[in-house]
Amino acid sequence: MTGEMPDWVGHRAAVLPTHPAVVTPERAVTYAELDKLAGEVGAALLERGVAAGDRVALLALNSLEFAVAVHGITRIGAILVPLNARLTPQELAWQLGDSGSRTLLFHAPTRGAALLAATEGGLPFTSLLSLDDPPVAGEAISAVAHSDDDAHSIIYTSGTTGRPKGAILTYSNFWNSAAASAFNMGVLPNDRWLACLPLFHVGGLSVLLRSAIYGTTAVIHGGFDETAVNRALRHEGVSLLSVVPTMLQRMLDADDAPYPPSLRGVLVGGGPVTREILERALARGLPVLQTYGLSEAASQVTTLSLADTAAHAGSAGKPLVCTQLRIDAEPGQPGEILVSGPTVTPGYFGNPEATARTIQDGWLHTGDIGRLDEDGFLYVLDRRDDLIVSGGENVYPAEVEAVLLQHPLILAAAVVGLPDERWGQVVAAAVVVRPGFDAGEATVWLRERVAGYKVPRRFVTVDTLPATASGKVQRHLARTMFI
Amino acid sequence: MTGEMPDWVGHRAAVLPTHPAVVTPERAVTYAELDKLAGEVGAALLERGVAAGDRVALLALNSLEFAVAVHGITRIGAILVPLNARLTPQELAWQLGDSGSRTLLFHAPTRGAALLAATEGGLPFTSLLSLDDPPVAGEAISAVAHSDDDAHSIIYTSGTTGRPKGAILTYSNFWNSAAASAFNMGVLPNDRWLACLPLFHVGGLSVLLRSAIYGTTAVIHGGFDETAVNRALRHEGVSLLSVVPTMLQRMLDADDAPYPPSLRGVLVGGGPVTREILERALARGLPVLQTYGLSEAASQVTTLSLADTAAHAGSAGKPLVCTQLRIDAEPGQPGEILVSGPTVTPGYFGNPEATARTIQDGWLHTGDIGRLDEDGFLYVLDRRDDLIVSGGENVYPAEVEAVLLQHPLILAAAVVGLPDERWGQVVAAAVVVRPGFDAGEATVWLRERVAGYKVPRRFVTVDTLPATASGKVQRHLARTMFI
Repeated sequence: MTGEMPDWVGHRAAVLPTHPAVVTPERAVTYAELDKLAGEVGAALLERGVAAGDRVALLALNSLEFAVAVHGITRIGAILVPLNARLTPQELAWQLGDSGSRTLLFHAPTRGAALLAATEGGLPFTSLLSLDDPPVAGEAISAVAHSDDDAHSIIYTSGTTGRPKGAILTYSNFWNSAAASAFNMGVLPNDRWLACLPLFHVGGLSVLLRSAIYGTTAVIHGGFDETAVNRALRHEGVSLLSVVPTMLQRMLDADDAPYPPSLRGVLVGGGPVTREILERALARGLPVLQTYGLSEAASQVTTLSLADTAAHAGSAGKPLVCTQLRIDAEPGQPGEILVSGPTVTPGYFGNPEATARTIQDGWLHTGDIGRLDEDGFLYVLDRRDDLIVSGGENVYPAEVEAVLLQHPLILAAAVVGLPDERWGQVVAAAVVVRPGFDAGEATVWLRERVAGYKVPRRFVTVDTLPATASGKVQRHLARTMFI
Repeated sequence: MTGEMPDWVGHRAAVLPTHPAVVTPERAVTYAELDKLAGEVGAALLERGVAAGDRVALLALNSLEFAVAVHGITRIGAILVPLNARLTPQELAWQLGDSGSRTLLFHAPTRGAALLAATEGGLPFTSLLSLDDPPVAGEAISAVAHSDDDAHSIIYTSGTTGRPKGAILTYSNFWNSAAASAFNMGVLPNDRWLACLPLFHVGGLSVLLRSAIYGTTAVIHGGFDETAVNRALRHEGVSLLSVVPTMLQRMLDADDAPYPPSLRGVLVGGGPVTREILERALARGLPVLQTYGLSEAASQVTTLSLADTAAHAGSAGKPLVCTQLRIDAEPGQPGEILVSGPTVTPGYFGNPEATARTIQDGWLHTGDIGRLDEDGFLYVLDRRDDLIVSGGENVYPAEVEAVLLQHPLILAAAVVGLPDERWGQVVAAAVVVRPGFDAGEATVWLRERVAGYKVPRRFVTVDTLPATASGKVQRHLARTMFI
C-alpha cells in the first residue's frame, strides 16, 4: 500500500450498489443500503462528539446491527472495540476502561448487559447508543479514505497471565489477511461466507471484513445451529464457512445428506480435527481446510490445503503468502510458534510492556507450542500452554484461578480442561479449601464475576496441589485428579 | 504491507511445490521447478557481478524462458527491464542506456536482435547472457524477501512528446493490482490465465506476475493465434484471458462453437469493444470484461462488470478497489483521466522532470481523455490525444513524426491512425516533401530506424498541413486527407 485505504463498504456501494452485502435470517441488505446505514451510525457518532481515533465499544450479538455498527464506527475513523457478550459486567467494565471507550453501542438483546457494564464502569448513560433507534442525526456520513496503518479495531485477548490485552488491528492487517486468504482459498464475486462464530471474536469479525474487502456477501447467523448451517450450505448459496471442530461434528451428526459442490471451503480453526471426523466430512463433500490463527494476526496464519489433508492429517498446514513462521527450537523440535508479516498486530493498546514482551524484532511470540515437520507443515501441540477451548471460546486457567483465589474459602486452585463431546473441553477446578466450602455456592459466586463459559463444571477438593519446587502449580499433573 | 514482500515463486514452491506454475505449448513446470530455474538464473547473474538494485534487461519472446528470467532477475533483487522485441537496435540501445542496464538476457529467437542492440548500445558482449545455455553457476539462489517499495520492473512507455520513459513499478504496485483484480474478477486455486499478449508489455507481464502472486497457473502462448486460443479456452482449462478488441473479433470469426462455463473472464483492454462484437461474444459464452489500464498503473485501473455491460456498452467500467479516479474537468464533462492509489508508479527512472509533470499531488496524469457518467462509469474518449493502437501496440504519432522529419526529403509530417479490420488501426502519414520523395524508399529508410508496427502503411503527399496559429500540426484535421 502507498498509505491509503478506501472505505471498503463505500467503494462497493459506488461500484456494486445492488450486490447483497449482508444477509441475516431476517433481512438482506445491498452495499448501497449498508453504506447508508453505516453512514447514519457515523453521523450519530459524530453528533455525540466522537472523533477519528476515539474508541467505540460494541456490545451486540451476531446480527445486521453488528455489521452496521462495525462499518459505522470505522466510517468516521473511530476504532471498533468489540466486546464479548458472554462476559460479566465487571469484565466488560474493565475492557471499557482499558480501551478508554467513552461510547458504547448496543441493541435490544444486549440492552441490559450494556446498562450494567456502563454502570459498573462508571460510564454516564449518555454514552450509550442504541442501534435499534432510528438515527438521530441528519445526513449519512460519506465514506472517506483511511490511512492503512490506522487502527481499525482493538480486540481483547486473554493471556497466560494477568488481565486481557487489547490487540490493535489495522486496516492493513485486515486487508493483507483478506488478500492472503483469497490467494489461498480463492474468492469469487458471488461468494457467500457464513459467519456462525461470534462476530466479536476475530474468527467471525474477519468473515465480515473480508466480505466487505472482496465485495462479496456475509451471511450472518445469530449463533451456531447445525440444522440452520446445513440448510444454508445446501439451499442458500453459502460457499465458504468458518467453524470450530465441535461445530463440524454437530453438522455431520445432524443428518446424512451430502453437501453440494457450491461449498468451496470450510475453515476449521481452534484445534485439530480428528481423523474420523475428517474422513466423514470429506466423504460427505465438506472441503475441510484446517487452519491455525489468532487475534494478534488478524485470524489465519496457516491453512492446510485440501490436497495435503490426507497425507498430513492433524496439521494446520503452511503459512499464507506474506506470513512468515518460525519455531523457537531446534529444527523438527517443538517450540513456541513465532509469526511475522503484514497481518501481525502493531501491539497492545496502552500496554507497551506487553507489546515489547510479545513482539520482538518483528516476531509475534504466540505462546502456542508447535512443530514443523520436514516438509514445513505446522503441527500445533498446545495452545498457549494450558489454554482451554470450550465451545469455541478460549479460557485461560490463570484468569479463572485468580478469581477462585478471591473466594474466601478457597486456598489454592488449579484449573484444567476436561474432554467433552459437545463443547470440546469444559473447565474443571481442583481446589484446596477451608471447611464449609460448597461447590454449588462457589458456582453462583463465580457466575457473578466471570463469563459463564469460564465457570468450572466440576470441582474436586484435594489436600494439596502438585507444584514445582518454586511453588508454581503444575496443571498437567492436576489433570490426573479428575480421572 | 508492513514493508516486506515475500518472493512469490519461492513462497509457492514452499507451499504448493507440485502445482503447475507456467505452461507453454512445449512444457509445463511446477512451482518447485520454476523456483529452481529462477534460482539458477539468479545464481548466474550474481556470478557476473549483478547486485540488488541493478537493472537487467530482458529481450525475449513469450516463452518459459521469459518467465524464468523475470523471476530469476527479481530473485536477487535486481530490476527487470523488459524490452519490446519489435523495436529496432537503435530503439533498444536507447532503452538499455536510459535504464543503465549492464546485463542483457536473451534466448535463441532474440539472439540476433540482442547482439545488434548490444553493439548499437556499446555494451560489451560479456554483458549478454543466454537463457538457453545451462546455468554457469553452482547452487540455485534461494528466495529472499523484498521491501514492498523496491522496484520490481522498469517498463518503457512512449508519450505524446519525446523519448520513451521508463515507468518504475514496485512489488507493492503489482501486489495491490493483483489483489484488486482478484477482488473484482475473483480468483480460484486452479485458475489458468492465458497470456497471448506480449509479456514485455504490462498487459502480458501482469498476467505472469498475478499468477505467481495468486499461486495459480500462467499459460503462455508464443503469440496470438485465434485457433490456439480457442482450443485453450475449450480444452485446456484456461479460465481467464487478456486480449485487445481485434483479438476478440478474430477468436469469434474463427469458428462458431460456444465457450465453456469454466472460462470466467475475458479482460479486453486497449480500446472499446463495439456493440456488435460484444453481443456476439456474450451470445457465445465469452464473459467480456472491458477494462482501462496503462503501464504507469500496473495495468487495470477500471473494469466493467458483466452485469453492467448491457446497460453501459462502450464504458471501461469503474475503478478497482483502492484506485481513485478523477476527471480533470467539470462534472460530466470530458477531461484528462487522473488516477491515484497503490498501483500507481512512483515515477520514471532517472527522469524527475517527467515524474513531476506526470504525477502531481499523488495523482497520475494519464494524458488520456475520458468522461464519467452520472453513475460513475468511465468512458475513454481518446487515448493520449492522438495515440494509435495497432495490433495491440501503442504508436505515438509524435515519435514517428520526429523520425520522419529526419528524412532528407520530408519537410513536414502528420501521423494518424486509420481504421483497419485486422489491426484495429494502422499508421498513416501525410507529408510535405521535396521533389524526388518516394514512399517505398522512405519505408525502407524508416524500417531501419523504428519498429515495423510504427512504419506508416500509407503515405499521402500534400502541399500543406493543417496547423494552429502557433504552427502546431492539427492531426485530427490531417485525418481527412486520407478519405
